[in-house]
Amino acid sequence: MTKRIFNFNAGPAALPLPVLEEIQADLLDYKGTGMSVIEMSHRSKAFEGIINDAIERAKRLLGADDNYQVLFIQGGASMQFAMIPMNLALPGKPVDYIDTGTWPTKAIKEAKIQGKDVRVIASSKERNYSYITKEYNVDKDASYLHYTTNNTIEGTQWSDYPDPQGVPLVCDMSSDFMCRPIDVKRFGLIYAGAQKNIGPSGSAFVVIRKDMLERTPEGIPTMLKYTTHAKENSLYNTPASFVIYTIGLVMKWLEETIGGLANMEKINIEKANVLYDFIDKSSFYRGTADKDSRSLMNVTFRLPSEELEDKFVKESKKAGMDGLKGHRSVGGCRASIYNAVSIDAVKGLVSFMAEFEKKEG
Amino acid sequence: MTKRIFNFNAGPAALPLPVLEEIQADLLDYKGTGMSVIEMSHRSKAFEGIINDAIERAKRLLGADDNYQVLFIQGGASMQFAMIPMNLALPGKPVDYIDTGTWPTKAIKEAKIQGKDVRVIASSKERNYSYITKEYNVDKDASYLHYTTNNTIEGTQWSDYPDPQGVPLVCDMSSDFMCRPIDVKRFGLIYAGAQKNIGPSGSAFVVIRKDMLERTPEGIPTMLKYTTHAKENSLYNTPASFVIYTIGLVMKWLEETIGGLANMEKINIEKANVLYDFIDKSSFYRGTADKDSRSLMNVTFRLPSEELEDKFVKESKKAGMDGLKGHRSVGGCRASIYNAVSIDAVKGLVSFMAEFEKKEG
Repeated sequence: MTKRIFNFNAGPAALPLPVLEEIQADLLDYKGTGMSVIEMSHRSKAFEGIINDAIERAKRLLGADDNYQVLFIQGGASMQFAMIPMNLALPGKPVDYIDTGTWPTKAIKEAKIQGKDVRVIASSKERNYSYITKEYNVDKDASYLHYTTNNTIEGTQWSDYPDPQGVPLVCDMSSDFMCRPIDVKRFGLIYAGAQKNIGPSGSAFVVIRKDMLERTPEGIPTMLKYTTHAKENSLYNTPASFVIYTIGLVMKWLEETIGGLANMEKINIEKANVLYDFIDKSSFYRGTADKDSRSLMNVTFRLPSEELEDKFVKESKKAGMDGLKGHRSVGGCRASIYNAVSIDAVKGLVSFMAEFEKKEG
Repeated sequence: MTKRIFNFNAGPAALPLPVLEEIQADLLDYKGTGMSVIEMSHRSKAFEGIINDAIERAKRLLGADDNYQVLFIQGGASMQFAMIPMNLALPGKPVDYIDTGTWPTKAIKEAKIQGKDVRVIASSKERNYSYITKEYNVDKDASYLHYTTNNTIEGTQWSDYPDPQGVPLVCDMSSDFMCRPIDVKRFGLIYAGAQKNIGPSGSAFVVIRKDMLERTPEGIPTMLKYTTHAKENSLYNTPASFVIYTIGLVMKWLEETIGGLANMEKINIEKANVLYDFIDKSSFYRGTADKDSRSLMNVTFRLPSEELEDKFVKESKKAGMDGLKGHRSVGGCRASIYNAVSIDAVKGLVSFMAEFEKKEG
């Protein structure tokens, strides 16, 4: 009998059990092909079926029309930090960024390395990124406006869309992609590292509006051009097949078991409420994000002391939980409650937190 | 009962059955952690154990000392085509390439895109890359000499090492990595896309001599610097964890089941001999590579007509085989007989070829 813990890791993170079970069942022989999915040619009909099914399901879930193309590009969100300015910055024009945490800071750094005219038009750094800053003016001639929907480390999330004031909107959705419906037509480009909400690590999931492809300049490495991957349906070179396969199974789970992103959002709100309500009623635990900026996905909190935080993390492991330590850069505690984390896991966590408080508070 | 075919795919390709079985057994609960390996933090002790075990086993198999470092970098060999000139070309100095086929041609193209002073010092293009050219003079001040040990598409392989005449040797070993012992100390850098001989797709395996790291210039994207990945033991960002995990299992199989690369080579020579001997005795099948340049890994051959080749591929599928169609760019037939392809599979193929010849010849 397999013992599964409550997994609150920030990424790689929990995946739906039926997805793992299907991978396991088909691992030696994918649907009667006599091969594992990781042994088959990426040019075979079987793999073509896998990648196209993943793309079609994703487009249906997102309500994305044919102005948009889905791409799978290796290197995760970190590679996208470099590809975005390289492909989408217009000659002589600025690139605008909103800085709400650690990851947007890294995205900004990569644009600067390339010598782009980077304008950080808003930042919540002065209060340790504990809120989503909403005061900004976009440069009229900006190549794009870049923001980050959810700040994995700081536990904050945009509750609404920023107004890009007429320039294309580019968004890192790594840690909340598909946690709720997305109004895709607002975006020039959406990207997400797969390993938080939609699959294993090893690929970024990119949704690009096709007119943005016209910006890719000549003279950059072939693998770093969006056009390369767009022309070849992400099969210019051997793709990260296992990641794409698993993403496809997660898409199927979202469509067929959950019933779409609106349902997913309801479940996620319920989960987050259970946890935040408990924290708000407690005087032992303290949430670190402003209430109006709280993340549905990454719930960050502190205990009265670092010693108690260490003890909390250690004892949570004994109680069958994992991943509750905050990011090494900020300390504290964090529960990542992505799509695949069940309400039972969240309730289990709250029970444990209550007991721990009773004992140590 | 799982039915497994004889898998002659060129990549992604056959993996050792015990490796697949171990992945399958541990898929829902990796060694009592209560999580799948694809659900666990790349900063966890469990994953640290996985990546370090893969690296240590690989270094033992290769006999690589501590002057060398193993890196896992997403994007496959195609990304390495760009990273090599970007990191290793010295200012104002040429980069030398030996052109023995389709993949070196792509490597050359990427160096040219970056405006490097690319010198193709030898090429076997004039005879459709059917042999390994061995006449060349390396530029004395070249930044490096790049070559490709095994030409997957053309079915040729270097039987010995080229003489780099005093400059660092850089080698693409994607399609024959670890098929035989490697004298690592001859190399400045070795790279291989994982999906042919050592694992699933989604990562390049890089072995770099540490002094080569000093060449990485400032001002290139963080993810494209060898130094970034070297400093962080391939954990600067979330790595392709499943690929690294599987590579580790293949390394264990090579060490513990096969007994090292010298044994692996013996098996591979035996397999290749069975197939080439049959082809040489036949007047129906014709090998396309010069005998002294033949590959141990990719056996390319033609039949009397394209119609017969199509029929051969179709009937081989009915007979429980896959992957025998030649690369779309050259046509014909190809059997990729990587490390994980058994002697039984090769003998099965030869029986099928003999029958087909009897019927159609």
